[in-house]
Parts: sequence; structure tokens; C-alpha cells
Amino acid sequence: MLLCLLDVIMPLFAFLAATRNRYILKYQLGANIVSAMATGSSKSRHAPAGELAVRTERRTQLLDVTAGVAKMVQDSGVQTGICYVYVPHTTAGVLINENADPDVAADIEAALTRMVPKDAGYRHAEGNSDSHIKTALVGSSATIFISGGQLELGRWQGIFFCEFDGPRSRRLRVKIVPD
Amino acid sequence: MLLCLLDVIMPLFAFLAATRNRYILKYQLGANIVSAMATGSSKSRHAPAGELAVRTERRTQLLDVTAGVAKMVQDSGVQTGICYVYVPHTTAGVLINENADPDVAADIEAALTRMVPKDAGYRHAEGNSDSHIKTALVGSSATIFISGGQLELGRWQGIFFCEFDGPRSRRLRVKIVPD
Amino acid sequence: MLLCLLDVIMPLFAFLAATRNRYILKYQLGANIVSAMATGSSKSRHAPAGELAVRTERRTQLLDVTAGVAKMVQDSGVQTGICYVYVPHTTAGVLINENADPDVAADIEAALTRMVPKDAGYRHAEGNSDSHIKTALVGSSATIFISGGQLELGRWQGIFFCEFDGPRSRRLRVKIVPD
Repeated sequence: MLLCLLDVIMPLFAFLAATRNRYILKYQLGANIVSAMATGSSKSRHAPAGELAVRTERRTQLLDVTAGVAKMVQDSGVQTGICYVYVPHTTAGVLINENADPDVAADIEAALTRMVPKDAGYRHAEGNSDSHIKTALVGSSATIFISGGQLELGRWQGIFFCEFDGPRSRRLRVKIVPD
Repeated sequence: MLLCLLDVIMPLFAFLAATRNRYILKYQLGANIVSAMATGSSKSRHAPAGELAVRTERRTQLLDVTAGVAKMVQDSGVQTGICYVYVPHTTAGVLINENADPDVAADIEAALTRMVPKDAGYRHAEGNSDSHIKTALVGSSATIFISGGQLELGRWQGIFFCEFDGPRSRRLRVKIVPD
Repeated sequence: MLLCLLDVIMPLFAFLAATRNRYILKYQLGANIVSAMATGSSKSRHAPAGELAVRTERRTQLLDVTAGVAKMVQDSGVQTGICYVYVPHTTAGVLINENADPDVAADIEAALTRMVPKDAGYRHAEGNSDSHIKTALVGSSATIFISGGQLELGRWQGIFFCEFDGPRSRRLRVKIVPD
């Protein structure tokens, strides 16, 4: 019975904490993350959810959003679980790779453009078929474990929002599911 | 205590609802979805599961299965959670991309075939190594959030079963995990 | 109330079982899997977690880790749920594909190397940009359903750890979430 009550009360606290931090967040997450917003409701017993608003600056750009996602995990109060990130766009994706040397992201951007040229006799009239194809290769979601209240990323790993048809305002949805 | 009971009763109702709709579904999901079947049992307290049977018509074909998956989510009665789709084949995958203009799917099909030619001195004797390689690139599963009892897809997003060695009868497994 | 207690007791049993089997495992999983370790604690009410330590032997190598992951699922005692595998490295990934004919894995290795050459004017100074790019294409995690206490893989499917900058000692994290 006590455990059942904890199931209700703990996410509620997490949600309240997230709400309080909403306005502080935008000053902490770096230039490209416009805002971070918790969108969960008290009806959701288990899984705090939210969204990062990002602003990309180039047509093809891997944007490091690790700090923003990590902050949402910390604010959720979830100690052990899984963090899901999801891109609701069709010309942008998400991937996990090295964020220590920015040349790695640049090399991934260049390699995708080499593999999927901008113009190659595509049928889609909007001129961004290459952006859709790159998204299909990279994927629309990623899964990261949570342990000790933190994203359990490998030593060199970061989370990259992958812009393939920018510059644009974009969103990255985040869902945090405790064990 | 009440919450614990709800945990048992609600998926049971969802399962019964899914069973009742099983025979109706095949007439509603479009030509290529042969059937949709809930395979959960009353033992499973939390996560309704099921399967879409699809029929592909070309060797390489992105087949829009959004309506079929969306119907299973609605039938499950789950309001907030995650929907997992999984392809149990090794020459077919699943991806999320634009389903408004069918030219996008056609461009993705063509680009994958350009990147992974059918014949390129492969070792595997069955003549479908390109199908296995395309599957490795696209992936065997996708994750979509559920909110308000619906798949929380972006405005232009649909779910595509990716046939790379058709035409064939195929299966897409679906698992719906409430928060 | 009884159900709440079961929620606590059952994973505890699973954890104890996993701990007991920890030392036996390394002799059963084949040459390349160095060890398998359950890293969950009794605080974690729901989701047993662990890690496979693998040893790769070539620069680019798809290593079949299905037996190791399957063993961890069995040891967890989880009957229905989801198994997540996660690679904490930036030059190695994980994918699901055919493990019956080893030529399929060899063809995937060769195709990725053809698509992403080792040298192509990359900026990253460590000389392994191709390894990072292949990882971005293949992905860092995979999701497999659990049913009847077993990984619910398709008939021809296996789980491959994808080494792209070996030979090295590597880790594959495993998390098992019951429904």
C-alpha cells in the first residue's frame, strides 16, 4: 500500500520540481537550446515527459543536446530507468556518438552528405529528399539507460540532434521511465 | 490497493476490447494489412501486445502501417505510454518518416538501392545480401510515445514497414507499455 | 497489497538467481564473451540490469552475442517484458540480423566498409572517423521483446555486437524491464 502511494507521490514531486526549474533551464543549457519544458501531468503516475526546443543554424548539423537531456533526467528525480528521446520531424533525427572532439560530428555530417547527395533525380518536389533519407538512416529515436539519477552514457558519448534540413526551430521529445 | 486492482482490471478490459475488434479490423486497415491480432493474455498485467500481418507487393517497398498500429493503440485503452514496433524478419525493417507525399517513400527506396546494390560480389549464397544490409541500416524496431490515448507522431510522420526482399507475407509485432 | 509485495519479492529472487549464476556464465557463452555480470541492486524493484564483456578480434567485426543476452534474460526470471541492449562506446554499435549463415555478417561488414571508406579526407585526427560514422548508421541500442521467459527473436534473428575499431575489449549493457 505504501509502495503504491509512493508511485503516485514521487512523480508528482518530480513534476513540481521540473515546473519550478522550467524558467531557469533556458539560461543553463547553452546557446542552441531555446527552452526545456516538462509536459507531464499529475495523471501520469510513472513517467515524466518533456520537450527541448532547439534552434539549428546550418542545413546539416549535429547539435549536442546532452546537457539539456541530462538536466531533464536530473529534474525528474528518477534514479533508475530509461530515457527515451524522440524527434517528431521527418527531416531530422537523433543519434549517440562522440562529443569530445567536434570534428567527429563534422565528419559524420560530411559522410552522410557524401552518401546521400542533395540532388540525385529525386521524385519528391520539395527538394529535401536527401534530408528524409538521412533521417531514415540515422533514426528518429534513441534509448539511454538511467542509473544513479544520471544518464548512463559511455565516457565519450553525447546525444546529438541531427538537423538535415535547417536552419530551423525544432523539438526533441523526452520521456523518462523509472524501473 | 485500488491502484493495484486497476493495474489488473484495465489491461483485461483492453484485451477483451481488442479481441472483439480483431475480426472487424481487417476491413478497416487498408489493402495491405491482412490482419491485426492481440496476442496478450490476462496474465500480462501491464502491456498489451499484438501483431500486424502485412502483404508486400514489390521487392523493395516502404508500406505505410500507421493506421494499423494506431488502431492497436486505441484498442489497448492505454492513455500514456510507449508503443514499440518490432520486425521479426532479417530482410525487412521499420522506420518513421513522411507519409503525406508517397514520393518520399519512393525516394528512400531508390536511395537505399543506390547505396546497397543488389549485386556486389556478396558471399551469402541466397542472393539477398542487399536486403540484409538495408535492414541493418534501417533497423528492426521503432519507438513511439503514446499521449492522450493516441500515437504521438509528429505532424508529417508515419510508420513504414520496410520490405527489402518481397513480395512476401510479413509480420510486425507491436507492444504497448503504459507509464 | 499482495501484488505490491510480489513486485518487490520477484525481482529480488531474480537478482539472487543472477548473482548465483554470475560465475558460471563465463564458461557457457562462447569464446568471445569474456564475462556476464548482473549489476542490478536490491533497490531496483523492477528491472534487472547487467553487462556482457566481449573481446573482438578484427577492426570491423559483427560478433554474435545472442547466447549471452538470452542467458541474462533467462537468469532474470522475467517472463514478459522488453530487453534493451546498449553499447557505451562511440566506435561500436549493435544490430539484429541473420546469424544462421555467417556470410551474412561478413557481407554487412564489407558493405559498411564500402559505403564508409577508412580514409576520405576526414577532419578527426585519430584516424577512426569511419568507425564513428558506421556506428551512427547502425545505432547504439536495440530493443527485443521478451515472451515466455525468452527473447522473442524471429526465427533467423540474432543480436550482433558491431565492432568498428577493434580489436578491443568492449562492453554491452543489458537492461530487462518486465511488463
